[in-house]
Amino acid sequence: MQTISIRTGHPYEVLVGRSILPECGAAVAKVVAPCAAAIVTDDTVDALYGASIEASLRRAGFSVSRIVFPHGEASKNLQTLAQVLESLAQAGLTRSDLIVALGGGVVGDLAGFAAAVYLRGIRFVQIPTTLLAMIDSSVGGKTAVDLEAGKNLAGAFWQPELVLCDTALLSTLPLNYRLDGLGEMIKYGMGFDASLLSMLRSGEWERDPEALVARCVAIKEAVVSADERDNAVRQKLNLGHTAAHAIERCSGFSITHGRAVATGTALVTRACVRRGELPAEALALLEETLDRCGLEKRCHFSAAALAQAAMHDKKRRGNRITLILPDAVGSCRLSPIAVEELESFFADGL
Amino acid sequence: MQTISIRTGHPYEVLVGRSILPECGAAVAKVVAPCAAAIVTDDTVDALYGASIEASLRRAGFSVSRIVFPHGEASKNLQTLAQVLESLAQAGLTRSDLIVALGGGVVGDLAGFAAAVYLRGIRFVQIPTTLLAMIDSSVGGKTAVDLEAGKNLAGAFWQPELVLCDTALLSTLPLNYRLDGLGEMIKYGMGFDASLLSMLRSGEWERDPEALVARCVAIKEAVVSADERDNAVRQKLNLGHTAAHAIERCSGFSITHGRAVATGTALVTRACVRRGELPAEALALLEETLDRCGLEKRCHFSAAALAQAAMHDKKRRGNRITLILPDAVGSCRLSPIAVEELESFFADGL
Repeated sequence: MQTISIRTGHPYEVLVGRSILPECGAAVAKVVAPCAAAIVTDDTVDALYGASIEASLRRAGFSVSRIVFPHGEASKNLQTLAQVLESLAQAGLTRSDLIVALGGGVVGDLAGFAAAVYLRGIRFVQIPTTLLAMIDSSVGGKTAVDLEAGKNLAGAFWQPELVLCDTALLSTLPLNYRLDGLGEMIKYGMGFDASLLSMLRSGEWERDPEALVARCVAIKEAVVSADERDNAVRQKLNLGHTAAHAIERCSGFSITHGRAVATGTALVTRACVRRGELPAEALALLEETLDRCGLEKRCHFSAAALAQAAMHDKKRRGNRITLILPDAVGSCRLSPIAVEELESFFADGL
Repeated sequence: MQTISIRTGHPYEVLVGRSILPECGAAVAKVVAPCAAAIVTDDTVDALYGASIEASLRRAGFSVSRIVFPHGEASKNLQTLAQVLESLAQAGLTRSDLIVALGGGVVGDLAGFAAAVYLRGIRFVQIPTTLLAMIDSSVGGKTAVDLEAGKNLAGAFWQPELVLCDTALLSTLPLNYRLDGLGEMIKYGMGFDASLLSMLRSGEWERDPEALVARCVAIKEAVVSADERDNAVRQKLNLGHTAAHAIERCSGFSITHGRAVATGTALVTRACVRRGELPAEALALLEETLDRCGLEKRCHFSAAALAQAAMHDKKRRGNRITLILPDAVGSCRLSPIAVEELESFFADGL
């Protein structure tokens, strides 16, 4: 098992190991004295892991309730949040009690947001069950729900007490979920760690997922601890994300987040190469890695459609938007541009 | 005009003065460079002050939109919050823009919560229009909405950039709103400042409201800056509040918050006198002040009903609840008791 210490204002640890969930209760009890715990999860994950997690927490001395909502991105809204908050109140949780967020990114973001606002904030533990949630959304304290106007537009920064990543769950993860996580992993490699990119290219991922998950968590930790509230360097984690969010939106969200990040990273890398800001070898290495992992290198939306969709981006400030662009394999930079230049930039990347 | 500096993690100033609102735009521009500003308010306040505030902000260089919801406590819920958040997105507000919360406690709590969660938090300015909002809810960063399960059960700690209290608004404030504010003022006097209590008893309030508002804000500032997240001494601001919340709930919320606080403070003071923990003169002084201000000294609910209602109190932790009790005129202390002892305590105070 690997332990990564997250040095945010409220520090905590991420534990990455194989088959650590059956004894999760003991791990949680080390950081939170037994109290009332509400497991917040979706129906799919509840059916798979709800009972065993509840049993483990009970063995460790927690009194446990379970709050279950329908799986899928469509649940990630203020209506579901309201239902979860009412259920927490019905379960009688007080300020000294605990939420256990058990599931993928939707569950983590929504249950984390519920923890941030219930009684103006109570403690929570993250148990991510997808690769994407393990390496991305469970680290760094960003919680959110979608508004009708766009994704993740309402939320809070709220750090958990502990994150438990059980890599045994990944072997049974459906392929589309695995691709989603690999897309974000490739982003970490391209933006922060060239050796991670070559491990993905060489298939190391299948041999030792624990090592790669821990490495991604460590990369994210270094960035987040330097800029918890996303005002500067943390924006680098958004490499490829302006294009990715536009791709997601243009696809009616049928292309999922991590896969869109993979394609978005390829798009901005291609644009940089075309503009002479990056050697062609950088794009070639990235595209080879995408092929190896079964991810799309290109999308079929027009530059105009992508630019229009990008206007909804949270990262827009007034008339400018900050793109994150690779400046070598394993390194990236912030590059603010005027929104009216987005279309020609995207055109260079198609 | 008086300026009180609030020394929270995110510091800001409260300005208290007569007729300062017509030039509010200039005051706001001193702390927030002109940007897009959304005035969030209710229909009653919007009709009275919306146009002049908007005009003043425009003169100072802000682009301004107005988001208006129906007045009253019934609006203070997650549904209204969702509408406000969608309206902020429709107005195109970005992370560098501003919310102006214009109204009483409901508006301040709801608009402040919207500011706390929109794009995971943007800046906001408070312009409280009632006495209660000026001396209580606009200082200290507590924001919230009600759940079906109870009042203020969902919210966040989020500090404003500036608070503007225009005491000219108080002369046209309807009597019931004035009583609401006086109830909280009496709590400040009884719990923190004996001379404030005598000023209220002598009618000083009518002669110089600006001085009394500023004094209450200064009292709250001293407490909040010592304990921003309400883990210890800040709980003292809840003098009389466990009883007050129970009184509100038992009345079906027809008795408003500040009036319930006045009666709740009398109830706990009476209980302390009966238990020999406080001299009878303390109660006599308090009751004389309540009479002078036109506030109720007693309520007509049974101790059992009050104790039952108090079980919903956010301050309950497991099986215990922390009461705030006067230990002299102008001083108070935390006193945790088991919930099953509440009924006999309330009985002593009736």
